[in-house]
Amino acid sequence: MYLTQGLHRAVQHHPDAVATVCAGRVRTHAESIDRIARLAAGLQVLGIRDGERAAILAFNSDRYHELLAATLWAGGAVVPVNLRWSVVEIADSLAEVDARVLVVDEAFAGHAEGLLDRHPGLAHVVHAGDGPSPDGTLGFEQLIADHQPVEDARRGDDHLAIVCYSGGTTGRSKGVMLSHANILTSTLGTLASGYAYPEGAACLHAAPMFHAAGLATWCAQLVRGGRQVMIPGFEPVAVLSAIAEHGVTDVVLVPTMVQLVVDHPRIGEFDLSSLERVLYAASPMSEVLLDRAMKALPNARFVQAYGMTELSPVATLLGSADHEHPAHRRSVGRAAPHAEVRIVGLDDVELPRGQAGEVVVRGGHVMRGYWDRPADTAEALRGGWMHTGDGGYMDDEGYIYLTDRIKDMVITGGENVYSVEVENVLCQHPAVAAAAVIGVPDNRWGERVHAVVVPATGQTVTLEELTDFCKERIAGYKTPRSLEVVETLPLSSAGKVLKRELRRPYWEGQERAVH
Amino acid sequence: MYLTQGLHRAVQHHPDAVATVCAGRVRTHAESIDRIARLAAGLQVLGIRDGERAAILAFNSDRYHELLAATLWAGGAVVPVNLRWSVVEIADSLAEVDARVLVVDEAFAGHAEGLLDRHPGLAHVVHAGDGPSPDGTLGFEQLIADHQPVEDARRGDDHLAIVCYSGGTTGRSKGVMLSHANILTSTLGTLASGYAYPEGAACLHAAPMFHAAGLATWCAQLVRGGRQVMIPGFEPVAVLSAIAEHGVTDVVLVPTMVQLVVDHPRIGEFDLSSLERVLYAASPMSEVLLDRAMKALPNARFVQAYGMTELSPVATLLGSADHEHPAHRRSVGRAAPHAEVRIVGLDDVELPRGQAGEVVVRGGHVMRGYWDRPADTAEALRGGWMHTGDGGYMDDEGYIYLTDRIKDMVITGGENVYSVEVENVLCQHPAVAAAAVIGVPDNRWGERVHAVVVPATGQTVTLEELTDFCKERIAGYKTPRSLEVVETLPLSSAGKVLKRELRRPYWEGQERAVH
Repeated sequence: MYLTQGLHRAVQHHPDAVATVCAGRVRTHAESIDRIARLAAGLQVLGIRDGERAAILAFNSDRYHELLAATLWAGGAVVPVNLRWSVVEIADSLAEVDARVLVVDEAFAGHAEGLLDRHPGLAHVVHAGDGPSPDGTLGFEQLIADHQPVEDARRGDDHLAIVCYSGGTTGRSKGVMLSHANILTSTLGTLASGYAYPEGAACLHAAPMFHAAGLATWCAQLVRGGRQVMIPGFEPVAVLSAIAEHGVTDVVLVPTMVQLVVDHPRIGEFDLSSLERVLYAASPMSEVLLDRAMKALPNARFVQAYGMTELSPVATLLGSADHEHPAHRRSVGRAAPHAEVRIVGLDDVELPRGQAGEVVVRGGHVMRGYWDRPADTAEALRGGWMHTGDGGYMDDEGYIYLTDRIKDMVITGGENVYSVEVENVLCQHPAVAAAAVIGVPDNRWGERVHAVVVPATGQTVTLEELTDFCKERIAGYKTPRSLEVVETLPLSSAGKVLKRELRRPYWEGQERAVH
Repeated sequence: MYLTQGLHRAVQHHPDAVATVCAGRVRTHAESIDRIARLAAGLQVLGIRDGERAAILAFNSDRYHELLAATLWAGGAVVPVNLRWSVVEIADSLAEVDARVLVVDEAFAGHAEGLLDRHPGLAHVVHAGDGPSPDGTLGFEQLIADHQPVEDARRGDDHLAIVCYSGGTTGRSKGVMLSHANILTSTLGTLASGYAYPEGAACLHAAPMFHAAGLATWCAQLVRGGRQVMIPGFEPVAVLSAIAEHGVTDVVLVPTMVQLVVDHPRIGEFDLSSLERVLYAASPMSEVLLDRAMKALPNARFVQAYGMTELSPVATLLGSADHEHPAHRRSVGRAAPHAEVRIVGLDDVELPRGQAGEVVVRGGHVMRGYWDRPADTAEALRGGWMHTGDGGYMDDEGYIYLTDRIKDMVITGGENVYSVEVENVLCQHPAVAAAAVIGVPDNRWGERVHAVVVPATGQTVTLEELTDFCKERIAGYKTPRSLEVVETLPLSSAGKVLKRELRRPYWEGQERAVH
């Protein structure tokens, strides 16, 4: 099984149907596959074949689609870079996977120099913009124009397809290695559910394509040979107008985005009748918001997916019918047609229904492992099960209710922020003695990053100072948005910070249904 | 990915829903999985683990389901035996794969002695009947009663799951080795099409479960956790009454069976309103019959699958909407969501649309190979594509029209008969000088096996004599049903028998849309 297979079907079944719509450019499958096969030839000349890595740092676009597909077509593996990362974070990850080629769009062209400084192994930077390519970079369009279409390498099965960096509990991100078989297992299983991306669907990429949810949508449409509509990034009016203009049927959003769309004052101006399905994932959605969203989009069915990058990414699905059920709608659904899910105790033994433990998952969609981290891989996959780090319980019909995130993280606007990473940075500040980072409720972001800090003797700290300090070192979305100064942190007998104690005042009376 | 995964989902999601219905026995998923886990424990004691082979020679039943599942649960591989084969054929195949355990039902218990004689490596015969087990055999029910449930071995991915014997062009059957990943690729891809086996489906096994089509249905319901209704074998009234009695929604039939059902004088006596889908496969269906069937079963959608055992087994699908199209309904559909299909010339280069060549297929569902036949495997899979031996062309929308079977075979009642195998037997008869076997049109079987024989000098041959001679050596369905005596066979310049010449008088004015 190989991810490029769907391209062959698309061009065989409906060559003249629309493959991509982006920024006024409309391309048929025949045109798109021709560009992909040419770009693949160019990438091969740059060394991308036999599993070599090409990375992409760009907003959503049709070229993003082409780069993903062309890298795989060439026989390489692709590294979609998190747009919010700092140059240092990106460079470290590209160096770790030894990426040879990096594609940047105009918005990120400025990063190239800093990345080359820190990762000299980066042999080529490709500029995917409409204007002329800056000195020292190759032109994306030129690369396509300069090469004849090459035959698909049809690399597949257990070969590496995508490396996605996700936050790690140790405070440093880990490269999740996903094979063609991993991703296609999740993709086919999700399609088999019948809940989303049917034949003839037109999907909107509003959530970032570098994210697991965006990639999953991309893969589903790749298999289906469906239409993909891209907007550079999430913006409520752009979403509304893309749906109306391009007859979008399926959209994937995180709940924060759902809220911004359905509460937007201009929503009534757009014809949203084409929208048949809203998939949401990566973050909790309150029942209040769900009700509001279902009212605002009466033609759409709501489907929830739960999973993680390490699961390629889908583990469970909550179908639209389940959303009508008073209890099930609070769950993340149940095992998808390609997954086995269990709740286990600390001893990894399955727990009785109703009892909370850790969610573990098994199946062909479980990642190959973390890049160059055999110990972390063995720990995460012990006993053959992916340990999600999410706490939850299962009811008598297999529905899973998440109760807590075992791994210590904050989910803000759909992004995972590992507390320890932020704490490490805070503790580097000379005025900080100790720091604990927690997620607290936030109307806009679901949770926000909240810092609890013990100042060093005789020092004072301010939120502004700490924020500036963090922003130089980590992505903006990871920096604390609120601060609490305390004399001491509550500690357990084992000396661990009792984060539950810190969270309590903020979460009292609210269920932290984080996932 | 492992085939037993669906059992875990079924018992997790709806333990009290009906899993199997057979001969008055109704078992829930909880009951069924308990039996499977116990039977697996028994099979492990008999040596079935780590890929060791257990075979089954039995009519369709809930026990057939349990044996398939339990063998995989134990970590073994299963060999479903063709019921029409002679003892010699069966023994040879079981010896080749070194099957240690054979499960027989009451109907086939008489075969055991002869099989043990020819394959002494067969360590255990298990009797899957309601009555007492004959001497020297183990009781299926006893095996379940005597063991505690064992943990699922969860053997999967590229490990061997099923060995299916299919006819070979060399005249001897070949063991097609299918891995868990092969079968699940075809299963998930077929489910992803949305054409059949939706959530909540109840499938009827009327076609034999040892066949690729029956196994595909079984796998689909295994993944879905759906209901499986078994009748021992195909009989029109039994089919009609099972549909009516058990609310069957999906049934897989070969066209011969469709004809016998829809033309049955008693069809009006049964409530067939539950039947939502009829899948047909393995044999051509004339447009006349299709029209008649669609009229007789107005609630049902018709779906065609084309493939072969080597493709686990689905390559293309023709959805119900395609059946409304005047041209597409004559095709076998187009590439399923897990398959890539091409038409190539003798040089294996892809041909332009509309030009007839050989159908070749690529994807994760292509078999691992033929048991112990590396040369045949390499030949069949040359260039990474499974060469189906079927001739056909593709239209501009990817629909495939079969024109001829490149491999020389007769398809009679859904069974493949390789001409050379029958010719080899005929030529052993002292009165036969030369023989050619072709398929000729037959109202009941679609095609029948027809022998064209050149008698040895001074000898005469009769159909009865040749039939008796063949029946001692090969399965009844392979023996010629009509005979033509000629002085010479028409030969090509290369000395090959021109079968087209032999076929012409029988097929004049009819399209032999064999597949």
